[in-house]
Amino acid sequence: MKKNQFVIIGMGRFGSSLGKELIELGYEVLGIDMDEEIVNEMSHALTHTVAADSTDEEALRSLGVRNFDCGVVAIGDDIQASILTAILLKDLGVKQVVAKAMSELHGRVLEKIGVDRVIYPERDMGVRVAHQLVSPNLLDYIELSKDYTIAELAVPKCLDGMSLQELNPRAKFGCSIVAINKSNGVIIAPTAADTLQEKDIMVVIGTNHQIDAFEGSVTAKSR
Amino acid sequence: MKKNQFVIIGMGRFGSSLGKELIELGYEVLGIDMDEEIVNEMSHALTHTVAADSTDEEALRSLGVRNFDCGVVAIGDDIQASILTAILLKDLGVKQVVAKAMSELHGRVLEKIGVDRVIYPERDMGVRVAHQLVSPNLLDYIELSKDYTIAELAVPKCLDGMSLQELNPRAKFGCSIVAINKSNGVIIAPTAADTLQEKDIMVVIGTNHQIDAFEGSVTAKSR
Amino acid sequence: MKKNQFVIIGMGRFGSSLGKELIELGYEVLGIDMDEEIVNEMSHALTHTVAADSTDEEALRSLGVRNFDCGVVAIGDDIQASILTAILLKDLGVKQVVAKAMSELHGRVLEKIGVDRVIYPERDMGVRVAHQLVSPNLLDYIELSKDYTIAELAVPKCLDGMSLQELNPRAKFGCSIVAINKSNGVIIAPTAADTLQEKDIMVVIGTNHQIDAFEGSVTAKSR
Amino acid sequence: MKKNQFVIIGMGRFGSSLGKELIELGYEVLGIDMDEEIVNEMSHALTHTVAADSTDEEALRSLGVRNFDCGVVAIGDDIQASILTAILLKDLGVKQVVAKAMSELHGRVLEKIGVDRVIYPERDMGVRVAHQLVSPNLLDYIELSKDYTIAELAVPKCLDGMSLQELNPRAKFGCSIVAINKSNGVIIAPTAADTLQEKDIMVVIGTNHQIDAFEGSVTAKSR
Amino acid sequence: MKKNQFVIIGMGRFGSSLGKELIELGYEVLGIDMDEEIVNEMSHALTHTVAADSTDEEALRSLGVRNFDCGVVAIGDDIQASILTAILLKDLGVKQVVAKAMSELHGRVLEKIGVDRVIYPERDMGVRVAHQLVSPNLLDYIELSKDYTIAELAVPKCLDGMSLQELNPRAKFGCSIVAINKSNGVIIAPTAADTLQEKDIMVVIGTNHQIDAFEGSVTAKSR
Amino acid sequence: MKKNQFVIIGMGRFGSSLGKELIELGYEVLGIDMDEEIVNEMSHALTHTVAADSTDEEALRSLGVRNFDCGVVAIGDDIQASILTAILLKDLGVKQVVAKAMSELHGRVLEKIGVDRVIYPERDMGVRVAHQLVSPNLLDYIELSKDYTIAELAVPKCLDGMSLQELNPRAKFGCSIVAINKSNGVIIAPTAADTLQEKDIMVVIGTNHQIDAFEGSVTAKSR
Amino acid sequence: MKKNQFVIIGMGRFGSSLGKELIELGYEVLGIDMDEEIVNEMSHALTHTVAADSTDEEALRSLGVRNFDCGVVAIGDDIQASILTAILLKDLGVKQVVAKAMSELHGRVLEKIGVDRVIYPERDMGVRVAHQLVSPNLLDYIELSKDYTIAELAVPKCLDGMSLQELNPRAKFGCSIVAINKSNGVIIAPTAADTLQEKDIMVVIGTNHQIDAFEGSVTAKSR
Amino acid sequence: MKKNQFVIIGMGRFGSSLGKELIELGYEVLGIDMDEEIVNEMSHALTHTVAADSTDEEALRSLGVRNFDCGVVAIGDDIQASILTAILLKDLGVKQVVAKAMSELHGRVLEKIGVDRVIYPERDMGVRVAHQLVSPNLLDYIELSKDYTIAELAVPKCLDGMSLQELNPRAKFGCSIVAINKSNGVIIAPTAADTLQEKDIMVVIGTNHQIDAFEGSVTAKSR
Repeated sequence: MKKNQFVIIGMGRFGSSLGKELIELGYEVLGIDMDEEIVNEMSHALTHTVAADSTDEEALRSLGVRNFDCGVVAIGDDIQASILTAILLKDLGVKQVVAKAMSELHGRVLEKIGVDRVIYPERDMGVRVAHQLVSPNLLDYIELSKDYTIAELAVPKCLDGMSLQELNPRAKFGCSIVAINKSNGVIIAPTAADTLQEKDIMVVIGTNHQIDAFEGSVTAKSR
Repeated sequence: MKKNQFVIIGMGRFGSSLGKELIELGYEVLGIDMDEEIVNEMSHALTHTVAADSTDEEALRSLGVRNFDCGVVAIGDDIQASILTAILLKDLGVKQVVAKAMSELHGRVLEKIGVDRVIYPERDMGVRVAHQLVSPNLLDYIELSKDYTIAELAVPKCLDGMSLQELNPRAKFGCSIVAINKSNGVIIAPTAADTLQEKDIMVVIGTNHQIDAFEGSVTAKSR
Repeated sequence: MKKNQFVIIGMGRFGSSLGKELIELGYEVLGIDMDEEIVNEMSHALTHTVAADSTDEEALRSLGVRNFDCGVVAIGDDIQASILTAILLKDLGVKQVVAKAMSELHGRVLEKIGVDRVIYPERDMGVRVAHQLVSPNLLDYIELSKDYTIAELAVPKCLDGMSLQELNPRAKFGCSIVAINKSNGVIIAPTAADTLQEKDIMVVIGTNHQIDAFEGSVTAKSR
Repeated sequence: MKKNQFVIIGMGRFGSSLGKELIELGYEVLGIDMDEEIVNEMSHALTHTVAADSTDEEALRSLGVRNFDCGVVAIGDDIQASILTAILLKDLGVKQVVAKAMSELHGRVLEKIGVDRVIYPERDMGVRVAHQLVSPNLLDYIELSKDYTIAELAVPKCLDGMSLQELNPRAKFGCSIVAINKSNGVIIAPTAADTLQEKDIMVVIGTNHQIDAFEGSVTAKSR
Repeated sequence: MKKNQFVIIGMGRFGSSLGKELIELGYEVLGIDMDEEIVNEMSHALTHTVAADSTDEEALRSLGVRNFDCGVVAIGDDIQASILTAILLKDLGVKQVVAKAMSELHGRVLEKIGVDRVIYPERDMGVRVAHQLVSPNLLDYIELSKDYTIAELAVPKCLDGMSLQELNPRAKFGCSIVAINKSNGVIIAPTAADTLQEKDIMVVIGTNHQIDAFEGSVTAKSR
Repeated sequence: MKKNQFVIIGMGRFGSSLGKELIELGYEVLGIDMDEEIVNEMSHALTHTVAADSTDEEALRSLGVRNFDCGVVAIGDDIQASILTAILLKDLGVKQVVAKAMSELHGRVLEKIGVDRVIYPERDMGVRVAHQLVSPNLLDYIELSKDYTIAELAVPKCLDGMSLQELNPRAKFGCSIVAINKSNGVIIAPTAADTLQEKDIMVVIGTNHQIDAFEGSVTAKSR
Repeated sequence: MKKNQFVIIGMGRFGSSLGKELIELGYEVLGIDMDEEIVNEMSHALTHTVAADSTDEEALRSLGVRNFDCGVVAIGDDIQASILTAILLKDLGVKQVVAKAMSELHGRVLEKIGVDRVIYPERDMGVRVAHQLVSPNLLDYIELSKDYTIAELAVPKCLDGMSLQELNPRAKFGCSIVAINKSNGVIIAPTAADTLQEKDIMVVIGTNHQIDAFEGSVTAKSR
Repeated sequence: MKKNQFVIIGMGRFGSSLGKELIELGYEVLGIDMDEEIVNEMSHALTHTVAADSTDEEALRSLGVRNFDCGVVAIGDDIQASILTAILLKDLGVKQVVAKAMSELHGRVLEKIGVDRVIYPERDMGVRVAHQLVSPNLLDYIELSKDYTIAELAVPKCLDGMSLQELNPRAKFGCSIVAINKSNGVIIAPTAADTLQEKDIMVVIGTNHQIDAFEGSVTAKSR
């Protein structure tokens, strides 16, 4: 299976991080930005980088943008350039166009002009950080549905040495521990005999309410 | 347990999203920004909003900032204001100071002056989006360790109606399905008899390699 | 039949001229512009004028914009504001949204987001003036089809006193004179006996080629 | 007869559209603009393009501007440059100088300094669009005199299949149909037996009052 | 004889000096400027001062500008405002309109739009200062014609105590001394017996050549 | 006698006019300005022109400015540059330094730092134009002393054909006519038999009061 | 003896530090700055503070500036304002005018216009810091003459416990220790029996050469 | 002993003065500034000068900054650049980093990130100048401790010819004269027989109170 090729337009903090990670994952990335300085800085990090005005149809055409599988419009703060670039990518035939929206209204326009996926990095990151701030042991989480979450929780000091049998979150809170990340490896589907140690990380699945109660209980003990 | 109080300085896209989510989670939030227009826009969304220069020690003091449990420096693009605000929050005695960094160098300064947690929203979001772009079925994921990941994958059409026994990812790829999010509820620790349907979401745990192989295999079939 | 109500956003040269003419034709017009000075200048010319940011959904909503039959986005040079305003008008439920495009690409976006009619005043006026410049006697014209045109031509000195029988453009050039505008009134479907006078205006219908030949012939004589 | 040569100063939206149409009509056009980027963009569209300051007498002289038959001052928003350029064109001996005015006062100055024809594209287009907005079927029109108009009207659905005898606008409204543009050609001076079909376009001549009544009547039926 | 009233538009260095001198000479002066600060500074120096935009016809009308005998457009560096103001003054019916030109081209426009007198203060002052610089004793002069000049010359030390008979410029250089300004009064039409003293000023009339020769001769002696 | 050499710093309207007149009078002039465009424009008008920063001592030194007899600081609106340039010219040893002052305060500084002559072109021209505006026949004048003036007056129509005997200004007003500029030459010290003609110009000497009375009398007659 | 009163114009870093120290020393200080924000910030630190334009003679006069004994022009970076303010202070009759110069050329102008003392804080501080950087033990110094210096030196570890007799700098290097600052007081004119301790500070007088040698010798030992 | 090498970042008034003095003292200095013009001006004054962005880690690394013994961050007014540069110098391993602070808050950040010595040139100079202004004879001083000072005082006229025995400051005021700088050399530890002359400079050591009393007494006599 031939690997995908990506073109990223706008190499600010989000776009450049995205590009570098795609390179890390083994993909080819063309980075385009209006600012020559940024283009030079990124030239060693991506497969190709070009300084060009992405709202100029001829410029995009001559760069062969239509041959890319996926175009990401990661333009920083210029809503006009973001919209014009996105419509050009669609019109040039790029299969999948992803664009970063700066506001809900901007996002609505992007969807109307046919962008395949609109992302809101700052908004999403704000939500994610909010959850981490209010739950000191919460390291990361996935919202499975409106009610269910998978949470990655640091094992607090008060649980050090406790076996899952003793802790028994299923009985007490209704949520299950599906994995424990210990210093010497990950235990998937741990048994009642497995014990927790401070600095372990446990993966818990359950309703938001169950996980909150569980997390709140162990946090309270730690204080 | 009395709930924490948060002060957020800088209400751009990241800061305002963070503040709104904290309010949603039931916390009190004071939002500070230099721009009166932004302060007015946010005044109905947060507990309090104030227009003030956060690099002015007297201003912060008179707002009683030292009484907050956690201060978040979410200033958009002004590295100087970010650093001066962070040091003032620490000096005023705010217990936990979290600050958004715009570059690795900015992050290093923030750590040196005693910021408790430095976050890089755009960089982290770039990494996250990169993974989603290269794995069409990947909805979200948690990196448990350098090797292990929990992935939330959309069930593709080609797996519609298949039982876990038939699919058997543990035998074929080494990774386990620890939950299935179906339209009528989440099945935790599903059994071999449970079947997948298109539009279900499955939560898979395993090494990056195992999950890539599994995800690649089902994606290939779908095409 | 209740008369339509119009809201015009952007009161530059085009928007204000449009608004004044609609008032002249007996319609009610609400004019919106960001610039308070322009709003004051136009306040006596239109039914209502308001200074507001048309990209602010709340502002438009509170002005009751959704009750208008037709919204015209006549914003001068800010493509972003034009696009965001247009999508807001559509989303608010304005039945007919007309928008001025600054470029072909801008026009494409406007069409994609659902604008009912995109107009290009400067481009269209450029075309119209070009025709008038190359045909000194051409006052105005309508392009009926790719081939057929109705032209309003000044009667040059050399045709003064000539009857239609003498002139006989149908026989000589293939085009017909369908009306003559004389100082004392318009003759519709003039007969062969009607005569032309300098300062009369004749309305000619025919193919572009026929009219060019006729117009060229009488221009040549005048020189 | 040797064709005219045109020099256009200012290649904004109006000027560039005018220039391209003149080229289309077979004339030679020299385009001048202060902005090198615009000059480059237009270099393939016009006969010649030059970047020059049109208020510099020496620059205009060295470009041989005095040899052109017609000079069009299409400068966008700089009233001073427009006036100084216009007087230079007149002083250099350009036979016909046409200039775009941005306001009535600007127009007065242009006339005083001897410009042969002052045009107001945005104002005129505003008027034209106003008429089209209030008459849904009106496609274009020529004002023959203060009272008489030739209107190009779309044939609405309610008139589909109707013969001119049945419709009889002359008897009912006093206006005449002088041409019908059908998909297979234009019928000039149609007879009573000719029938209308939806999507045909009819050319009507009459007083404004007659045409309004006729247009209003068929629009009302269509609703 | 009722004294004239003046309106001066633009109160920069030239306009304010002109206004103050007119007040000194006993006339009424209305000063108009866009800049409120300048208007306040000049409010004690002139009869009336108003902050207004002189290119706004309504503003000028409401100030009763048409009742002034003479309008001076002394606008500093804004050619557009100067031209638009001048045409408005003419159109409002100000009897005499005088305007300061910033360049020869600007002056040509002002004349074409009907300005009664165009002045070039900096250019004229440059010429006047040039003459004074090259003739150390020349204090001031009037050019009577292309050839004849009246010069006001300081009496140099070398002529101290000399009678006109001894000096006899008529015989030696062809020019005449028509007045001597002595510390105790002016001698008009001095006789041969009148003597010069250092610090006297003599008024000489003659051709440029004669005066140059005379002035050069006495300057040479002084060195 | 070797002719003087002038260096003029600042080639705005005043400086360039001064420079051109000095060239006209046969002197060598070096023109210096910071603006390369102005330097190019003036390069054919003066002996030499150079683009340089006149507040840079090294730059002035390397241009050999100290060898010039007279330096004129004619800098437009930058008081700081004017002062620094003037002190450098003095320090470099330029014999005579003349500088244009923009305000009385600026002038005081220039005098304190040793400038030999401070000129106020706009202020002086304002005074001069004021006199011309209030006396329609006054063409030019020299103020001999606080009381005495030499005035150049146009001969109005009402004096056409009148002899000096008839006019007798000395008897009626106390002032004398010392010269008459006629189309065929200048009459110096005219006799009682000489007659005036319209379009002649008479040179009158007297007190301000006498000349005002005389000028007022002939102006009144002309009306 | 009545204490002096100071007026400081410009309250940047230098001016505000100067003002606060004068207050500390018991003097009255009026602080003037154009920037209202700075004026408010300083209002509690100085006797009076006023926002005013110090180049406006009337403003200074109405503040009674002429009654102050000493005026300090501490304006940050605006050379023009510095010069105009300084000349106004002198002209208003302030007895002593001190001004900060930004460059040597600026300083020359200040001296020419009569400023009593010109200071170069950044330049002087640069020199002072240079000496401290190259001599690690040098805390401060006074240059008595071109050759002689009094230096304040930290006593390095290697001299701990040593008596002046042992150290004997006069014999070894030619310089004398005139005072020792010990934790419990200063010994003036110490005797041979007095001993040094680490953290003591010794005051040494001698030629630059002697002190360098002495300082170099003890530094070398410390390493 | 090999001499130290210094790198100075920021060559404004403070940095350039510091650099030149270090060169004067025989050290090697690399000067870095973002402004190419400043770099060129300083290129002859320092060992090396380079135009570079000091917040770019790669740039600093490639200049070999880590090999310098001491780095001085003398950046003028850009707090962000100052902080980022300082942390880079520390991270690159420069042994001693000295930085200029613009405010107390800026200084706190610099200390937190590990700067070895923070200097406040304008603040310190303000304090120093304050002392000199209030003591007319005070030329310079060193604060030995909170109480003790060494002061360099001009000998006023009233002490001319007086011997130390007569003056006897120790008996009258408690302070000692430790040196006298006479035109023909410095007398260290002067005896009672030594006499003072106007223009001599005396070095006095004592408590602030003693020196103030002594200085006040001799100043009072001089008036």
